[in-house]
Amino acid sequence: MNDAPFDDGGPKSRRRSVSGPTSADVARLAGVSRSTVSRTFTPGASIDPVTAARVRAAAEELRYSVDPLARSLISRRSDTVGLVMGGLENPFYPAVAAGFMERLQQRDLRVMCHVAADIEAVADGVRAMLRYRVDALIVTASGMSNAAVDDCRRAGVTVIFFNRAVTLSAASSVQTDNVAGGRAVADHLAACGYARPAYVAGLANASTNRDRQAGFTDRLAERRLPAPRVESGGYTYEGGCDAATRLLRTKPRPDAIFCANDIMAMGVLDTLRHAHGLSVPDDMAVVGFDDVPMAGWPSFDLTTVRQRRNRMIEVTLDLLDDLRGDAEAPPVHRLIPGRLILRSSTRSP
Amino acid sequence: MNDAPFDDGGPKSRRRSVSGPTSADVARLAGVSRSTVSRTFTPGASIDPVTAARVRAAAEELRYSVDPLARSLISRRSDTVGLVMGGLENPFYPAVAAGFMERLQQRDLRVMCHVAADIEAVADGVRAMLRYRVDALIVTASGMSNAAVDDCRRAGVTVIFFNRAVTLSAASSVQTDNVAGGRAVADHLAACGYARPAYVAGLANASTNRDRQAGFTDRLAERRLPAPRVESGGYTYEGGCDAATRLLRTKPRPDAIFCANDIMAMGVLDTLRHAHGLSVPDDMAVVGFDDVPMAGWPSFDLTTVRQRRNRMIEVTLDLLDDLRGDAEAPPVHRLIPGRLILRSSTRSP
Repeated sequence: MNDAPFDDGGPKSRRRSVSGPTSADVARLAGVSRSTVSRTFTPGASIDPVTAARVRAAAEELRYSVDPLARSLISRRSDTVGLVMGGLENPFYPAVAAGFMERLQQRDLRVMCHVAADIEAVADGVRAMLRYRVDALIVTASGMSNAAVDDCRRAGVTVIFFNRAVTLSAASSVQTDNVAGGRAVADHLAACGYARPAYVAGLANASTNRDRQAGFTDRLAERRLPAPRVESGGYTYEGGCDAATRLLRTKPRPDAIFCANDIMAMGVLDTLRHAHGLSVPDDMAVVGFDDVPMAGWPSFDLTTVRQRRNRMIEVTLDLLDDLRGDAEAPPVHRLIPGRLILRSSTRSP
Repeated sequence: MNDAPFDDGGPKSRRRSVSGPTSADVARLAGVSRSTVSRTFTPGASIDPVTAARVRAAAEELRYSVDPLARSLISRRSDTVGLVMGGLENPFYPAVAAGFMERLQQRDLRVMCHVAADIEAVADGVRAMLRYRVDALIVTASGMSNAAVDDCRRAGVTVIFFNRAVTLSAASSVQTDNVAGGRAVADHLAACGYARPAYVAGLANASTNRDRQAGFTDRLAERRLPAPRVESGGYTYEGGCDAATRLLRTKPRPDAIFCANDIMAMGVLDTLRHAHGLSVPDDMAVVGFDDVPMAGWPSFDLTTVRQRRNRMIEVTLDLLDDLRGDAEAPPVHRLIPGRLILRSSTRSP
C-alpha cells in the first residue's frame, strides 16, 4: 500500500477549551456530579439546599456564569457549536454527527444542527446560526460559498470543514487523505490481477469524489493499467444500482468496480448478484470507501477504505479548541490517513 | 390485517406557528427571497442597500425582530426546538432527525440536538436545553424521567415524545400503533402456516418493544398458536446475530422470527444464511419493524411493519404548533397506523 503522502497532522496536545470554566470544573471543586451542578442551576429542579449552596460557592469562586443566553449577549459567546450537514442518508454521517454531539456535550457545549441539500441552503443555515451567535461551525455539507465563509470570518466565528477540501476560503479543514485512499485501491486491484477497472463517482462537485478519483486514476496510470470507465452514482444506493447496470453494458466489461462510497458499492453488489446473477469477487470485484458498519456485514463483506472517524472528530475538536475565538488565526488543514480493509468482495493478491 | 385499534388522530388543519412573524413573512412583503432577508440582517453580508432598506421597512411593519438572542431574553422564547435522541445507529432515527430538521428549518426554527445513552444523560441534556430556553422538546430517546418532564412543565416548555409511550407524565406523544403492528405480524405468520414463532426483543425498557411484543403475543394466543420463544437483541445488529444463534439451539426450533426492529432482523437474516446455511423463507421466516430503506434492498428483502415516518413527523409538528407556549394544555396522544409490507423473507399466505 502506497501511503507516502499520508500525514496525520503531527502530535496533538490535549488542550483545555478556551471557553472558560465549565460545569465539570464546578462539579470537581464542589465534589459533586455534573448532574448536581446542572440541577442547582435549573429553575424548579429538586436539589438538597446544603449541596446547592456548596455548588453555588464553587461556581462563584470559578466565576462560572449560569445563564448561557445572558452570558452570550455580554461575551458574544454562546458555548454553542453549529453542525451543518448535507444529509444523513449515507450512514457515515449519522455516525459522525453522533460522535460530535457526544464529545461536544462532554465539553459542556451545545450543538445546533442544520441539514442543507445545496449550497444556497447551507448559506441560509450558516447565517441563521450566526444570528444565534454560535462560537464555531463544523461543516460536513459538500458545498459552502466563499461569501458564507467570509460572513463567518467577519463575525469572528471559526469554520472547520469536515471531510471537505477548502480551496479559496479562510476556513480550516480535517479530512481523510482521499487521494492516498484512491491510490491504495488501485494498488490492491493491480496486485490481485484485475485489469479492467471502473469507477462509480459520487457528487461531481464534492472534493471527496474528485480526490478519490484522481488518486485511483493516477495510480492506475503509474501501474500501466487502463484509465477507469466512469459512471456517476451520485453517492446514493440507487445511483450505485443504476451505475452497475450501465457498466455491465460496456465492452469490454469491467472486472473491478471502485465506488466513491460504501452505500453505492452495496448497490453495485446487490445489482451484480441479484439482478444479474454474477459472483463477487469471481466475476467482478467491488470496493467501497468509508467502512460504514454494514460494510462488514456478511451480506456485503466489502473491501473498502476505512475513514478513521473517531480520530477525525478528535482532531477537529482539538483544532476548534486552538482556533475558537481567534478570528485572525490562519486556517489549518489536516489530512488523516485512511486504511484499506480487505474483505471478500475482492480476490486475494 | 387486523387494524381495528388504529387511529390516526383525526383530521389535521395546517396551522400557522404561534411564534410571530418569520423571515418568510418579511420576504413575502418585501418581494424578495428569504435568503435576501437573511443577508440583510447578517452583519457583514453583502447586500444591495436599496433592497436592504425595503427589507428593513417590511420587517418593521411586521414587527419582525432581528436579534434572536435579545428577543428570547425578553420574550423567553428562542424559536429553537430541542431534539433529544437516544442514538443514531438504527437508520430509522437519522431519517427522523433529518426530517425534523428540514421541516423546522422551513418554519424558521432552529434545532438544538442532544444524544443521550441513558435516562440520566437525557435529563442532563434536557436541563442544558432549558437553560438555553428552547421553546419545545421533541424526545426520541427511550427514557426520560418524570422529574425532567416536570422541569420542562415548570419552565413552560412543551415536550412531545416521538415513538415513545408516556405513562405518568405530563408530556404528549406521537407513535406508531405498535400493538397493532405486532398483531398484524402474528396474523401474517399464521396465514402463511408458520407454527413455531419466536420474538427477538429490543430494549426491555422501551415502550416500542413492550407494545410490539404484547400485540404479537396476544394475537398468537387468540389464533391458538404457541407463545413465542423470546430472546433479547437489544435493538442492535450484533444483538440480532446473537439472538439468532441462541434461537437455533432451542428445541423445537422456531420456524418464524419476528424482530422488534429491522436492523436486528438483518442480523438474524445474515446469521441464518451465512453462518448456518439456512434458506429464508423456506427454512425460516424473518420479519422486522420500521421499514428502513435497506430493508427493501435485495440482500435482505425483508417483510416488515412500515412506520409512516413523514406522517408521524407532520403530526408531531402540528401538535407543536397547537401546544407551544401553552404549558397548561393537557397532553395529547396520537397513534399513527403502521403498514405491513410483504417481501420475500416470509412465504406467501
